[in-house]
Amino acid sequence: MKNTQQPSGMPIHKYRPYHEQLAVDLPDRTWPSKRITEAPRWCAVDLRDGNQALIDPMSPERKRIMFDLLVKMGYKEIEVGFPSASQTDFDFVRSLIEENLIPDDVTIQVLTQAREGLINRTYESIAGAKQAIVHLYNSTSVLQREVVFRTDKQGIIDIALEGARLCRLAEATVPEVDVHYEYSPESYTGTELDFALDISNQMVDALGGTPERPVIINLPATVEMATPNVYADSIEWMSRNFARRDSVILSLHPHNDRGTGIAAAELGYMAGADRIEGCLFGNGERTGNVDLVALGINLFTQGIDPQIDFSDLDEVKRTAEYCNQLPVPERSPWAGDLVYTAFSGSHQDAIKKGFEAMAVDAVAQGVTVDDLVWAVPYLPIDPKDLGRSYEAVIRVNSQSGKGGVAYLLKTDHALDLPRKLQIEFSGVVQAKTDAEGGEVTSDQIWAIFQDEYLPAPVTRPEDKWGRFELNRTQTASDLGGEVSLQTVLRVGDDVINADATGNGPIAAFLNIMAEQGIDVKLFDYVEHALSAGGDAYAAAYVELNVNGTRLWGVGIDADISTASLKAVVSAVNRAVRATTDDRELAAV
Amino acid sequence: MKNTQQPSGMPIHKYRPYHEQLAVDLPDRTWPSKRITEAPRWCAVDLRDGNQALIDPMSPERKRIMFDLLVKMGYKEIEVGFPSASQTDFDFVRSLIEENLIPDDVTIQVLTQAREGLINRTYESIAGAKQAIVHLYNSTSVLQREVVFRTDKQGIIDIALEGARLCRLAEATVPEVDVHYEYSPESYTGTELDFALDISNQMVDALGGTPERPVIINLPATVEMATPNVYADSIEWMSRNFARRDSVILSLHPHNDRGTGIAAAELGYMAGADRIEGCLFGNGERTGNVDLVALGINLFTQGIDPQIDFSDLDEVKRTAEYCNQLPVPERSPWAGDLVYTAFSGSHQDAIKKGFEAMAVDAVAQGVTVDDLVWAVPYLPIDPKDLGRSYEAVIRVNSQSGKGGVAYLLKTDHALDLPRKLQIEFSGVVQAKTDAEGGEVTSDQIWAIFQDEYLPAPVTRPEDKWGRFELNRTQTASDLGGEVSLQTVLRVGDDVINADATGNGPIAAFLNIMAEQGIDVKLFDYVEHALSAGGDAYAAAYVELNVNGTRLWGVGIDADISTASLKAVVSAVNRAVRATTDDRELAAV
Repeated sequence: MKNTQQPSGMPIHKYRPYHEQLAVDLPDRTWPSKRITEAPRWCAVDLRDGNQALIDPMSPERKRIMFDLLVKMGYKEIEVGFPSASQTDFDFVRSLIEENLIPDDVTIQVLTQAREGLINRTYESIAGAKQAIVHLYNSTSVLQREVVFRTDKQGIIDIALEGARLCRLAEATVPEVDVHYEYSPESYTGTELDFALDISNQMVDALGGTPERPVIINLPATVEMATPNVYADSIEWMSRNFARRDSVILSLHPHNDRGTGIAAAELGYMAGADRIEGCLFGNGERTGNVDLVALGINLFTQGIDPQIDFSDLDEVKRTAEYCNQLPVPERSPWAGDLVYTAFSGSHQDAIKKGFEAMAVDAVAQGVTVDDLVWAVPYLPIDPKDLGRSYEAVIRVNSQSGKGGVAYLLKTDHALDLPRKLQIEFSGVVQAKTDAEGGEVTSDQIWAIFQDEYLPAPVTRPEDKWGRFELNRTQTASDLGGEVSLQTVLRVGDDVINADATGNGPIAAFLNIMAEQGIDVKLFDYVEHALSAGGDAYAAAYVELNVNGTRLWGVGIDADISTASLKAVVSAVNRAVRATTDDRELAAV
Repeated sequence: MKNTQQPSGMPIHKYRPYHEQLAVDLPDRTWPSKRITEAPRWCAVDLRDGNQALIDPMSPERKRIMFDLLVKMGYKEIEVGFPSASQTDFDFVRSLIEENLIPDDVTIQVLTQAREGLINRTYESIAGAKQAIVHLYNSTSVLQREVVFRTDKQGIIDIALEGARLCRLAEATVPEVDVHYEYSPESYTGTELDFALDISNQMVDALGGTPERPVIINLPATVEMATPNVYADSIEWMSRNFARRDSVILSLHPHNDRGTGIAAAELGYMAGADRIEGCLFGNGERTGNVDLVALGINLFTQGIDPQIDFSDLDEVKRTAEYCNQLPVPERSPWAGDLVYTAFSGSHQDAIKKGFEAMAVDAVAQGVTVDDLVWAVPYLPIDPKDLGRSYEAVIRVNSQSGKGGVAYLLKTDHALDLPRKLQIEFSGVVQAKTDAEGGEVTSDQIWAIFQDEYLPAPVTRPEDKWGRFELNRTQTASDLGGEVSLQTVLRVGDDVINADATGNGPIAAFLNIMAEQGIDVKLFDYVEHALSAGGDAYAAAYVELNVNGTRLWGVGIDADISTASLKAVVSAVNRAVRATTDDRELAAV
């Protein structure tokens, strides 16, 4: 079969292969036969390299939330800013120290260029900390030497050594801080290896590296320029050739320009590195830093403890999305909304048989399923271990192939369902249309949606949708942020007055539900305006855990706050209804 | 510095490392010293593996648009469906053939399981095609043999061989079609290598593979289970050990569960593969298939012709987003909205110096910048080569760090700006606030936004915002989809009646603009409802090229169609204003 591909006409003359720019020659490399057996030292740089790449950088409140999240997950080295370059960063570092927010076993890291004013300001920022890593960098690449710094190799070495000297001097200003050092030959992937080695060796000496107090040498793929095996070769070469390897902690800092940042980190770690810097979900300049979540969970799937807690990955995701104001993509490794879905019938069948076989094995061995080695086709991990669940999605085609369920709700009813609600609702539609075959009209979809999530229009007094109904709400907010909520609530056939407070109307309403014996936890909340009917309406979607069942609710109202309370009622009523249905079925 | 990381408590006992499950042993591997020098044969599987993983699968119209896009980009092998499993897929394949939509040098590929009814139906679907690849698969992994098929290796081989026999028989039903074959030992990464080799060798024979008519043996990482070097080792081992290597086209089909699909494809290709299957922007089951866009442009950056045209990447992205109803993430390699932005001052400075140095070099050498080898720090590619542009974003902090520009517009004015407009507007705010320092209030941001994009409220007759103003619009649509638009338009000081037709109101209005001497091309269009003022309003955002300048416009109106026309007027007026300003400046 002939290959009929044609020249594209793209201007390939503008680009030279990496190996013609820089030599990385290591024919006796050993890393391809190595295996990863333990977690590296992690350093999370979300608050510096990640934050620096956001259109809207994090506010102090968001920074604080991100810091707390990273600590809670188990990161022990956290780069918290570039305090000499940004007043916001400086103030944030000061607040961490002055408010005593850094646990004893966590080390903050601060970035600085190798210039006197900046270095002194950096030491001011860390005064009073128990320990800190001062991270000094300068650019070393051929290109930056030529076009940015217009200097030779010795000029670049002089900048770095002068920075080291100033750092050692400034140490005296913070005698209470246990100061450690990191040096990055920035744009390392654009630097001749022997020069990167030379400047790194000199910096280990200048920064006082010893086997007892090693210096972190961080080798950033500032721009990812070649296949990841080339980065790994370069790391193994560096690791073998350091003058005093035992005084070095070899650190990786991969970016993801070619989409191979995760591979570069893994192969580089196999090649002898000790430490990896990255960001949650791969936030960072351009295509991002390497994704710490993917790296950590990749280890976990091999039975290696990542030493980071990913057991509530949705919470981690929500928090990162809030702090970064950037969504985690649907297909982001291990975390995306579509990662544990199966749409194809043959996949679903195989997964079902996998679950069944594990259940049988567990019984045969007299253990629980969680004691067994995980073995389900198309699911490389038990989603439960990350607080997620597997979703078998049977898709429903609309009439004449005009689009699917989510598309029709959006087009015909202006409802933009969150991805996970789309998946849940597909199952509802499927269950109700099974008997009638796979085709369904937009009107049928809308009727099913109303029936499932929204109270039907009340035409007779006996028309009551679900156990709870909101008849009236009133909220008042004091200046401290506490909201008090008064409601008139129908509960079954009774109408009661129920009041509560909380840090928002939803929180207050969950307290009212708790008084009614309904234990509710909020997982997700999404709202948008809609104008389908000519008037201004808002739709609110909540994902709740109601008495142990996780499900969605939907509310529509002219008032966004009321819409969100209606959404809670919708989810609670659905949960109650499911329980009642089960009881009725059990009674049959 | 002590490593203080702690055990996470994650249930690592549930997982075994890959090498304890399956042996891939190739200490004398040669691929790590290889370099990629030419493009592989590509096969785009967006219409099958990609489509199969969408919540809302593509409608026939969307499938057609995706097929045309893939053809236009230069893909010559396109998997168009699983026709025996889906009536929609069957009908689509028939329409491609019957409507003569397949260029002579393009080969369609259809997937089938190895079962008689399915195979015969598959041949029905391709009747009348000039050529086609019949892609036969069955699962071969240890796990699937045990829990899904409950059979031994010979049982799996029998399924495959029987499939091959039935295919050869069915060939007689379509004598007009030049039929080629592909066989996939599905779940290859969960299969013992010697067994994968054995079944593949037998299938090459059974499907009549010869050096003149080789069989495609496709080795899918159905689930990505190990670091990408392990996949590469396995590919090199297979490539070395095929009984008749010259009768095999060795194909890769990586998925991205661990986030290393791109690396697996590249290392596997270095290890001896000939061909790669994937999807645009990595759509596909769970975390997706390997990303064909990243793979192709990665080659381009090394001076290797991808044989695929990526010169209008935004158009490719928009089309894929429309067909898949899934956004391409902001940090997707080469394609994301944030990939060519630089936020940090030192990056911006280095980039500026890089551009300047190239300009100087071009003059010195008497050539244009496009004749030079690309060399700009932090920009591994000239964005222009992909139809993109570099954006230096200077961020503006709002008062007291309450959030950035985009955040405040969303919170205070319900305007959810598209990412690229956020970037553009940041520049506008920066330009207007430079004199006053970096802090700016929400009110100031709103005033700047109104002044830049929206007509000011007209309080006096002489208040005219920009050269054009829409006074009245009326649209009528016939059943053929053509829309006729009548407008009353202020042009400078004149008020005229201007009418035109188009396939939508915007298209019609662009024709009116053309009559006014304004050459406008539409790049992007986004709209959303908003209810900030209590009434129902819609906001529309358009990205246009106006007389050679690319910029955004914004329109707000109770009617969504009018909002979109106002957005066009906004962009056109901004472009005219910029030209006028330039002229006035030039006259100073």
